[in-house]
Amino acid sequence: MGSASSAERVKITVMKFGGTSVADPEKIQRAAERAIAERRRGYAVVVVVSAPGEMTDELIALAERVAPDPDDRELDQLVTTGEQVGIALFAMACRARGAPAVSLTGPQAGFEAVGAHGRAQVRRVRTRRILRHLKAGEIVAVAGFQALGPGGDTVTLGRGGSDLTAVALASALKTGRCEIFSDVKGVYTADPRIVHDARKLERISFEEMLELAGAGAQVMQARSMEVAERFGVRLHVRSAFHNQAGTWIVAKEDLMLEKAFVSSLALDKSEVRLTVVGVPDRPGVAAKTLAALAEAGIPVDMIIQSAASHRGVNDMSFMTPKSSASKAKKALEAAAKRLGAERVDLNDQVAKISAIGTGFRHSPQIAATMFKTLAEQKINIHMISSSDLRVSCVVDSRDGESALRALHKAYGLARKGR
Amino acid sequence: MGSASSAERVKITVMKFGGTSVADPEKIQRAAERAIAERRRGYAVVVVVSAPGEMTDELIALAERVAPDPDDRELDQLVTTGEQVGIALFAMACRARGAPAVSLTGPQAGFEAVGAHGRAQVRRVRTRRILRHLKAGEIVAVAGFQALGPGGDTVTLGRGGSDLTAVALASALKTGRCEIFSDVKGVYTADPRIVHDARKLERISFEEMLELAGAGAQVMQARSMEVAERFGVRLHVRSAFHNQAGTWIVAKEDLMLEKAFVSSLALDKSEVRLTVVGVPDRPGVAAKTLAALAEAGIPVDMIIQSAASHRGVNDMSFMTPKSSASKAKKALEAAAKRLGAERVDLNDQVAKISAIGTGFRHSPQIAATMFKTLAEQKINIHMISSSDLRVSCVVDSRDGESALRALHKAYGLARKGR
Repeated sequence: MGSASSAERVKITVMKFGGTSVADPEKIQRAAERAIAERRRGYAVVVVVSAPGEMTDELIALAERVAPDPDDRELDQLVTTGEQVGIALFAMACRARGAPAVSLTGPQAGFEAVGAHGRAQVRRVRTRRILRHLKAGEIVAVAGFQALGPGGDTVTLGRGGSDLTAVALASALKTGRCEIFSDVKGVYTADPRIVHDARKLERISFEEMLELAGAGAQVMQARSMEVAERFGVRLHVRSAFHNQAGTWIVAKEDLMLEKAFVSSLALDKSEVRLTVVGVPDRPGVAAKTLAALAEAGIPVDMIIQSAASHRGVNDMSFMTPKSSASKAKKALEAAAKRLGAERVDLNDQVAKISAIGTGFRHSPQIAATMFKTLAEQKINIHMISSSDLRVSCVVDSRDGESALRALHKAYGLARKGR
Repeated sequence: MGSASSAERVKITVMKFGGTSVADPEKIQRAAERAIAERRRGYAVVVVVSAPGEMTDELIALAERVAPDPDDRELDQLVTTGEQVGIALFAMACRARGAPAVSLTGPQAGFEAVGAHGRAQVRRVRTRRILRHLKAGEIVAVAGFQALGPGGDTVTLGRGGSDLTAVALASALKTGRCEIFSDVKGVYTADPRIVHDARKLERISFEEMLELAGAGAQVMQARSMEVAERFGVRLHVRSAFHNQAGTWIVAKEDLMLEKAFVSSLALDKSEVRLTVVGVPDRPGVAAKTLAALAEAGIPVDMIIQSAASHRGVNDMSFMTPKSSASKAKKALEAAAKRLGAERVDLNDQVAKISAIGTGFRHSPQIAATMFKTLAEQKINIHMISSSDLRVSCVVDSRDGESALRALHKAYGLARKGR
């Protein structure tokens, strides 16, 4: 690619601004000022810009008013304009402040992708044009979420695509790190709106972040984190509106942990519990029940099967997002009928509370602390699941906040950790 | 270009929809239905789509909030998204109605331009991709106003650019005609909101249309009409919201006129009159006065210099758009000082009324009818100018409408002409 030789001479920073960070002209100007400040510190600056504010959703809504089921290629042709608006305004804002800048769409920036419209995958980044602009001292604003597709048209990268653009650039430009600006200040030991002494973590591992995402804390899209980990790109998740450092997401090795550790708690009220009651205790029945959900494309967390009761039947429970609840119930009811199960219950008054960290497998104490704390609070536990990185309990949704506060205290998370 | 051979086998229609014709999802759907109807009549259909509604102006306003004087390249990167939104929605609307369709940006459609950002000129249209889609039976929606620039980025074509895109396509595809859809039903003998028996013309010449544009009737941008005339593309100006025929703009030869003829009247209240009073009657003074306006980039119509009075001084009058009035007055006042003229008067209570047609030079009767009619109405004439194609009088603005109605009657325009 002819990139490395010239890239390595000057230090490059890749910054990414999410939609809320460029939602209006004032915010775009503030973001531009941060890029300019980084340039003044001696870095060559590449900025990945998302579509301003709710523009992507507004464009999709417009499409749906024109066509109930819009074509993927035309949808890409439509929504890629959002990031194009973002980069043009960003470059203008830099130039208005005296900093040379240029905007590049995904194809102009050298992003090449394979795969279908709406869910393409980056195949490579030809960095020559970006490096030319950087060499000329320009701030380069790159449209997130888009690339040149196999047919020569612009394609989008699917969910979380702007994060992915930033990570791919950091990898191609060999920066080793990537600054992710959004409306959150970093990763906290728990939601600070609920737990008032929640503490911002200085560092957390990719693995823990992926578990946090699975536990309902949406800081970054999972796919982007996986790619960052694979290509050795440390991520700095920070606020676009405050100057202090955020949280670094780094490889587990970089944390040099010697013992089991709870880093963060998550409370998720966006799911429902589905229970198939009275499943005959025969081999293959559990698999068939799960298959019914998988075929309908329904995401599932926490699959729990009760021990066979004296009646020779089991209960199977799942957690699934509220948005999939009615679809999931229908699929399970059809399966229940086929398998001779009794009925399907749905409980939408539940909350999933999770402790995320490392080394849980060798430290049963962490799970024990959770159960003991909830018991002391007289909070009833409906379901439990645990792995090396996470312990989750499902409780009544009205108990969620008090459970979170009690656990934050029990694990001592307000004190200085990492 | 390899275009003609395959293009000539099937008849192609080029349709152009202006911003008001695609201002919202419902209007886009109606426009799509017209394209589909044309396809059903056996034509291969190429549709040039503008940015929906006020989108271009909104994007420019956004740019100005970010940067007071936005860079031309970044402005092009920004505003070209408007037409891209238009074509994507248009193609979706066609597909939702069962008609195969594809959207192409200017570069995708093969438009290549020379010249600077914001005011590029079409150099050629490589029609191969369009023809391929047409051959596959698809309606092709092409983004107006944009092309691939010399540097490989997208450039815009300057004012009236979507009309120009349509005309260039009609020329490249050798269709001989182009359908221009907008919110006007055609060209009228006078503004039907003022003259109730005004009649829609079936046909009018390019020359007359250019004079009409100069007289303040903005149906189509002058540059697009000049290009259409040069390349032998007849234009059909018609309503996007009604099915009846509009007005054909054709070459003068096609009209086969044997005598002088008034085709249309125009009333323009958008200008002011500026008078430099007491200009010394010396050679070169008029030129210097005009140069002052030209240097300031101020458009001028009807330059009238009174005959030298007994005092050895002249008065010079100009008509200029209201938007340029204060800038023009300042430029003239500076010139008046240098040249020893007395003062500069501005009258913004004036209206320009014009008769447009053909063969006026050989028929003084046409101008005479105008002066006589205005005299009968006791309407005072401030300024007169005339050419072979146009007679214009400046009157008090309060007399504009009654003058228009009286002249429409005097010239017999309500009766069937062309």
